Amino acid sequence: MKVQSSEDVARLPVEMEGAVGCSVRWLVSREDGAPNFAMRQFEIEPGGYTPHHHHPYEHEVYVLEGAGEVLDGETPRPISAGDVILVQPDDVHQFRNTGDKPMKFLCLIPNSADNRPGVAGPECSAVESRQ
Amino acid sequence: MKVQSSEDVARLPVEMEGAVGCSVRWLVSREDGAPNFAMRQFEIEPGGYTPHHHHPYEHEVYVLEGAGEVLDGETPRPISAGDVILVQPDDVHQFRNTGDKPMKFLCLIPNSADNRPGVAGPECSAVESRQ
Repeated sequence: MKVQSSEDVARLPVEMEGAVGCSVRWLVSREDGAPNFAMRQFEIEPGGYTPHHHHPYEHEVYVLEGAGEVLDGETPRPISAGDVILVQPDDVHQFRNTGDKPMKFLCLIPNSADNRPGVAGPECSAVESRQ
Repeated sequence: MKVQSSEDVARLPVEMEGAVGCSVRWLVSREDGAPNFAMRQFEIEPGGYTPHHHHPYEHEVYVLEGAGEVLDGETPRPISAGDVILVQPDDVHQFRNTGDKPMKFLCLIPNSADNRPGVAGPECSAVESRQ
Protein backbone atom coordinates (compact mmCIF):
# COMPACT_ATOMS: atom_id res chain seq x y z
CA MET A 1 0.00 0.00 0.00
CA LYS A 2 1.42 3.34 -1.04
CA VAL A 3 0.78 6.20 1.42
CA GLN A 4 2.51 9.48 0.58
CA SER A 5 2.10 13.21 0.89
CA SER A 6 1.42 14.72 -2.52
CA GLU A 7 4.00 17.38 -1.60
CA ASP A 8 6.68 14.65 -1.58
CA VAL A 9 5.98 13.64 -5.17
CA ALA A 10 8.26 15.27 -7.75
CA ARG A 11 6.77 18.33 -9.40
CA LEU A 12 7.67 18.46 -13.07
CA PRO A 13 7.17 21.15 -15.70
CA VAL A 14 4.53 20.40 -18.33
CA GLU A 15 6.40 20.77 -21.59
CA MET A 16 3.58 20.05 -24.01
CA GLU A 17 3.13 22.49 -26.87
CA GLY A 18 0.39 24.93 -25.95
CA ALA A 19 0.91 24.68 -22.17
CA VAL A 20 2.00 27.77 -20.21
CA GLY A 21 2.78 27.95 -16.48
CA CYS A 22 1.82 24.32 -15.74
CA SER A 23 3.44 21.67 -13.58
CA VAL A 24 2.42 18.12 -12.76
CA ARG A 25 2.95 15.53 -10.05
CA TRP A 26 2.21 11.90 -10.99
CA LEU A 27 0.68 10.82 -7.66
CA VAL A 28 -0.33 7.29 -8.68
CA SER A 29 0.53 5.55 -11.92
CA ARG A 30 1.68 2.35 -13.53
CA GLU A 31 5.05 2.93 -11.91
CA ASP A 32 3.32 2.28 -8.56
CA GLY A 33 1.56 -0.78 -9.95
CA ALA A 34 -1.79 0.95 -10.47
CA PRO A 35 -3.76 -1.52 -12.61
CA ASN A 36 -6.11 0.74 -14.55
CA PHE A 37 -5.73 4.52 -14.23
CA ALA A 38 -3.36 7.27 -13.14
CA MET A 39 -3.85 10.18 -10.73
CA ARG A 40 -1.96 13.37 -11.54
CA GLN A 41 -2.02 16.71 -9.71
CA PHE A 42 -1.67 19.77 -11.90
CA GLU A 43 -0.80 23.27 -10.81
CA ILE A 44 -1.37 26.25 -13.10
CA GLU A 45 0.09 29.63 -12.30
CA PRO A 46 -2.10 32.76 -12.60
CA GLY A 47 -2.50 33.48 -16.31
CA GLY A 48 -1.36 29.98 -17.27
CA TYR A 49 -3.23 27.31 -19.22
CA THR A 50 -3.11 23.75 -20.52
CA PRO A 51 -3.19 22.99 -24.26
CA HIS A 52 -6.43 23.65 -26.12
CA HIS A 53 -6.76 20.20 -27.61
CA HIS A 54 -8.54 16.87 -27.73
CA HIS A 55 -7.52 13.24 -27.47
CA PRO A 56 -9.23 9.87 -27.51
CA TYR A 57 -9.31 9.36 -23.72
CA GLU A 58 -11.17 10.95 -20.84
CA HIS A 59 -10.15 13.25 -17.99
CA GLU A 60 -11.78 13.04 -14.57
CA VAL A 61 -10.90 16.27 -12.78
CA TYR A 62 -11.40 17.56 -9.23
CA VAL A 63 -10.41 21.16 -8.45
CA LEU A 64 -8.46 21.35 -5.18
CA GLU A 65 -7.52 25.03 -4.93
CA GLY A 66 -7.98 28.25 -6.82
CA ALA A 67 -10.32 29.24 -9.60
CA GLY A 68 -10.38 29.56 -13.36
CA GLU A 69 -12.28 28.17 -16.29
CA VAL A 70 -12.45 25.16 -18.52
CA LEU A 71 -13.03 25.68 -22.21
CA ASP A 72 -15.81 23.33 -23.31
CA GLY A 73 -15.02 23.43 -27.01
CA GLU A 74 -14.81 27.22 -27.35
CA THR A 75 -17.12 28.05 -24.43
CA PRO A 76 -15.54 29.08 -21.10
CA ARG A 77 -17.17 27.58 -18.02
CA PRO A 78 -16.11 28.80 -14.57
CA ILE A 79 -14.51 26.30 -12.17
CA SER A 80 -13.32 26.57 -8.58
CA ALA A 81 -12.31 24.41 -5.63
CA GLY A 82 -14.69 21.52 -5.08
CA ASP A 83 -15.85 21.32 -8.69
CA VAL A 84 -15.73 18.10 -10.65
CA ILE A 85 -15.32 17.91 -14.43
CA LEU A 86 -15.67 14.97 -16.81
CA VAL A 87 -13.96 15.61 -20.14
CA GLN A 88 -15.17 12.88 -22.47
CA PRO A 89 -12.89 11.28 -25.07
CA ASP A 90 -12.46 13.64 -28.04
CA ASP A 91 -13.97 16.66 -26.22
CA VAL A 92 -12.02 19.81 -27.11
CA HIS A 93 -10.91 21.37 -23.80
CA GLN A 94 -8.47 23.70 -22.06
CA PHE A 95 -7.94 24.59 -18.39
CA ARG A 96 -7.11 28.23 -17.65
CA ASN A 97 -6.19 29.94 -14.41
CA THR A 98 -8.01 33.29 -14.49
CA GLY A 99 -7.46 33.96 -10.78
CA ASP A 100 -4.60 35.50 -8.82
CA LYS A 101 -3.50 32.34 -7.00
CA PRO A 102 -2.27 28.97 -8.26
CA MET A 103 -5.05 26.65 -9.42
CA LYS A 104 -4.53 23.04 -8.42
CA PHE A 105 -6.54 20.10 -9.64
CA LEU A 106 -6.43 16.35 -9.86
CA CYS A 107 -6.71 14.94 -13.39
CA LEU A 108 -7.07 11.19 -13.84
CA ILE A 109 -6.53 9.28 -17.07
CA PRO A 110 -6.63 5.62 -18.10
CA ASN A 111 -3.25 3.89 -18.09
CA SER A 112 -3.46 3.49 -21.86
CA ALA A 113 -2.97 7.27 -22.17
CA ASP A 114 0.21 7.35 -20.06
CA ASN A 115 2.90 7.63 -22.69
CA ARG A 116 5.72 9.13 -20.61
CA PRO A 117 9.15 8.20 -21.94
CA GLY A 118 10.86 5.62 -19.77
CA VAL A 119 7.73 4.44 -18.01
CA ALA A 120 7.20 0.74 -18.60
CA GLY A 121 3.72 -0.15 -19.72
CA PRO A 122 1.51 -1.27 -22.54
CA GLU A 123 1.85 0.17 -26.00
CA CYS A 124 -0.12 3.37 -26.32
CA SER A 125 -1.93 4.57 -29.39
CA ALA A 126 -2.54 8.03 -27.94
CA VAL A 127 1.03 9.31 -28.30
CA GLU A 128 0.51 11.41 -31.36
CA SER A 129 -2.65 13.03 -30.10
CA ARG A 130 -1.41 14.35 -26.75
CA GLN A 131 0.05 17.46 -28.36
CA MET B 1 -18.66 17.91 -20.64
CA LYS B 2 -19.94 17.61 -17.10
CA VAL B 3 -19.02 20.52 -14.80
CA GLN B 4 -20.59 20.43 -11.35
CA SER B 5 -19.93 21.42 -7.77
CA SER B 6 -19.35 18.33 -5.65
CA GLU B 7 -21.72 19.90 -3.11
CA ASP B 8 -24.53 19.56 -5.65
CA VAL B 9 -24.08 15.79 -5.99
CA ALA B 10 -26.39 13.70 -3.80
CA ARG B 11 -24.81 12.60 -0.52
CA LEU B 12 -25.88 9.06 0.33
CA PRO B 13 -25.33 6.99 3.46
CA VAL B 14 -22.88 4.11 3.11
CA GLU B 15 -24.88 1.11 4.19
CA MET B 16 -22.24 -1.58 3.82
CA GLU B 17 -21.78 -3.94 6.74
CA GLY B 18 -18.85 -2.74 8.82
CA ALA B 19 -19.22 0.96 7.88
CA VAL B 20 -20.03 3.53 10.58
CA GLY B 21 -20.61 7.26 10.07
CA CYS B 22 -19.84 7.24 6.33
CA SER B 23 -21.48 8.92 3.39
CA VAL B 24 -20.65 8.99 -0.30
CA ARG B 25 -21.19 11.20 -3.36
CA TRP B 26 -20.71 9.55 -6.75
CA LEU B 27 -19.08 12.51 -8.53
CA VAL B 28 -18.33 10.78 -11.84
CA SER B 29 -19.45 7.32 -12.87
CA ARG B 30 -20.87 5.17 -15.65
CA GLU B 31 -24.11 7.09 -15.22
CA ASP B 32 -22.26 10.14 -16.59
CA GLY B 33 -20.75 8.10 -19.41
CA ALA B 34 -17.33 7.72 -17.78
CA PRO B 35 -15.62 5.04 -19.86
CA ASN B 36 -13.24 3.43 -17.40
CA PHE B 37 -13.37 4.50 -13.74
CA ALA B 38 -15.53 6.22 -11.15
CA MET B 39 -14.75 9.10 -8.77
CA ARG B 40 -16.49 9.03 -5.38
CA GLN B 41 -16.14 11.47 -2.50
CA PHE B 42 -16.43 9.92 0.95
CA GLU B 43 -17.04 11.73 4.21
CA ILE B 44 -16.41 10.01 7.54
CA GLU B 45 -17.62 11.52 10.78
CA PRO B 46 -15.26 11.69 13.78
CA GLY B 47 -15.01 8.17 15.21
CA GLY B 48 -16.40 6.62 12.01
CA TYR B 49 -14.81 4.12 9.69
CA THR B 50 -15.18 2.17 6.46
CA PRO B 51 -15.32 -1.64 6.42
CA HIS B 52 -12.13 -3.54 7.28
CA HIS B 53 -12.09 -5.69 4.19
CA HIS B 54 -10.51 -6.55 0.86
CA HIS B 55 -11.71 -6.94 -2.71
CA PRO B 56 -10.21 -7.69 -6.10
CA TYR B 57 -9.98 -4.09 -7.33
CA GLU B 58 -7.88 -1.08 -6.43
CA HIS B 59 -8.64 2.21 -4.67
CA GLU B 60 -6.87 5.43 -5.62
CA VAL B 61 -7.46 7.85 -2.76
CA TYR B 62 -6.74 11.54 -2.19
CA VAL B 63 -7.46 13.06 1.23
CA LEU B 64 -9.24 16.41 0.87
CA GLU B 65 -9.94 17.42 4.46
CA GLY B 66 -9.39 16.16 7.98
CA ALA B 67 -7.13 13.48 9.38
CA GLY B 68 -7.24 9.86 10.41
CA GLU B 69 -5.58 6.61 9.52
CA VAL B 70 -5.69 3.84 6.99
CA LEU B 71 -5.25 0.28 8.20
CA ASP B 72 -2.67 -1.39 5.97
CA GLY B 73 -3.62 -4.95 6.83
CA GLU B 74 -3.63 -4.57 10.61
CA THR B 75 -1.15 -1.68 10.75
CA PRO B 76 -2.49 1.86 11.19
CA ARG B 77 -0.82 4.51 9.05
CA PRO B 78 -1.63 8.20 9.62
CA ILE B 79 -3.25 10.15 6.79
CA SER B 80 -4.26 13.79 6.40
CA ALA B 81 -5.25 16.33 3.77
CA GLY B 82 -3.01 16.18 0.72
CA ASP B 83 -2.04 12.53 1.17
CA VAL B 84 -2.43 10.00 -1.60
CA ILE B 85 -3.05 6.28 -1.03
CA LEU B 86 -2.97 3.37 -3.47
CA VAL B 87 -4.81 0.34 -2.12
CA GLN B 88 -3.88 -2.54 -4.42
CA PRO B 89 -6.37 -5.25 -5.36
CA ASP B 90 -6.80 -7.69 -2.44
CA ASP B 91 -5.05 -5.41 0.09
CA VAL B 92 -6.85 -5.57 3.45
CA HIS B 93 -7.70 -1.98 4.39
CA GLN B 94 -9.91 0.34 6.45
CA PHE B 95 -10.21 4.12 6.62
CA ARG B 96 -10.80 5.59 10.09
CA ASN B 97 -11.45 9.15 11.19
CA THR B 98 -9.44 9.60 14.39
CA GLY B 99 -9.77 13.40 14.36
CA ASP B 100 -12.42 15.77 15.63
CA LYS B 101 -13.64 17.02 12.23
CA PRO B 102 -15.12 15.21 9.23
CA MET B 103 -12.54 13.46 7.06
CA LYS B 104 -13.22 13.80 3.33
CA PHE B 105 -11.44 11.91 0.60
CA LEU B 106 -11.78 10.99 -3.04
CA CYS B 107 -11.76 7.26 -3.74
CA LEU B 108 -11.64 6.06 -7.35
CA ILE B 109 -12.44 2.57 -8.56
CA PRO B 110 -12.60 0.86 -11.95
CA ASN B 111 -16.08 0.74 -13.47
CA SER B 112 -16.05 -3.05 -13.16
CA ALA B 113 -16.34 -2.62 -9.37
CA ASP B 114 -19.41 -0.34 -9.55
CA ASN B 115 -22.20 -2.71 -8.64
CA ARG B 116 -24.84 -0.23 -7.47
CA PRO B 117 -28.37 -1.49 -7.95
CA GLY B 118 -30.10 0.20 -10.85
CA VAL B 119 -26.93 1.51 -12.48
CA ALA B 120 -26.64 0.16 -16.00
CA GLY B 121 -23.25 -1.26 -16.83
CA PRO B 122 -21.19 -4.33 -17.51
CA GLU B 123 -21.55 -7.45 -15.44
CA CYS B 124 -19.46 -7.25 -12.32
CA SER B 125 -17.65 -10.08 -10.64
CA ALA B 126 -16.88 -8.05 -7.54
CA VAL B 127 -20.40 -7.97 -6.11
CA GLU B 128 -19.94 -10.62 -3.50
CA SER B 129 -16.69 -9.20 -2.18
CA ARG B 130 -17.77 -5.59 -1.52
CA GLN B 131 -19.23 -6.48 1.88
